[in-house]
Amino acid sequence: MADSTRGPFARALLQQCLHAKLQIQRGLIIYVCFFKGASEEIIPKMVNTLVNVKLSETESGEYVSVLDLPGSILVIPQATLGGKLKGRRMQYHSNIEKEIGMELYSQFVTQCRRELTANTKFAESGVALKYGTYGNRQVLKVDTNGSFSHMIDF
Amino acid sequence: MADSTRGPFARALLQQCLHAKLQIQRGLIIYVCFFKGASEEIIPKMVNTLVNVKLSETESGEYVSVLDLPGSILVIPQATLGGKLKGRRMQYHSNIEKEIGMELYSQFVTQCRRELTANTKFAESGVALKYGTYGNRQVLKVDTNGSFSHMIDF
Repeated sequence: MADSTRGPFARALLQQCLHAKLQIQRGLIIYVCFFKGASEEIIPKMVNTLVNVKLSETESGEYVSVLDLPGSILVIPQATLGGKLKGRRMQYHSNIEKEIGMELYSQFVTQCRRELTANTKFAESGVALKYGTYGNRQVLKVDTNGSFSHMIDF
Repeated sequence: MADSTRGPFARALLQQCLHAKLQIQRGLIIYVCFFKGASEEIIPKMVNTLVNVKLSETESGEYVSVLDLPGSILVIPQATLGGKLKGRRMQYHSNIEKEIGMELYSQFVTQCRRELTANTKFAESGVALKYGTYGNRQVLKVDTNGSFSHMIDF
């Protein structure tokens, strides 16, 4: 999604899980990071992409979106994903300012909820949207039969 | 590490954990993916970087390498990290051919073991190196007090 003339503004890492604490059942874990220059304009495209990308395996081995599974979503703010290696340390100079990042993260979660509740399959199935607190340490248990990690830049 | 004239040849995603099954105790999870054009020349630099990058938190809150912690290492082959979004699906055209990837993965694990066993702190501490089987589904349990995900391209 990102092109070389403007560099990525946001990064999402997706993992499949059977369980993850902050507790969700079967579904998708989305780790989110915003870079300097990101604005609220990218949020609808990010959310639309992430809830619709066909990465979730059904019982019959077909890949569908988390919305169509339907599965739960666990959103984890993960600013460390913006780190760049410098010698033996990671530096985070490309990351967005904390206050703006917090606001974008909040909008991201809100728009995820909106997409999910608009989907009848999701709304009827009792699956959940959970999300970590921006800026906090993310204490997490994950149980997966194939973490199946994917990275998407926006 | 990667520069724009040659694109990344390999990608590593690092996560901190308290426990991870395939079972290790406290340490570092390294998800590894190789791209087309990768050769064995990049393995020493990859391994050296990954075991020495200061991302592991000590009891006193200092960040040291997994070697210095010392912590266990869990290596997970994760070809899905090379996926690129195309419409609503991920495509894996940039990924290395399976046989070469398997050989590079095997060398990666061997060189990890070599670095670890050469380190007296690591050798004496009873920590472990575990790794998933290339090409298999990675069944995994992770327990973390901050997954602290980092991505490094080589």
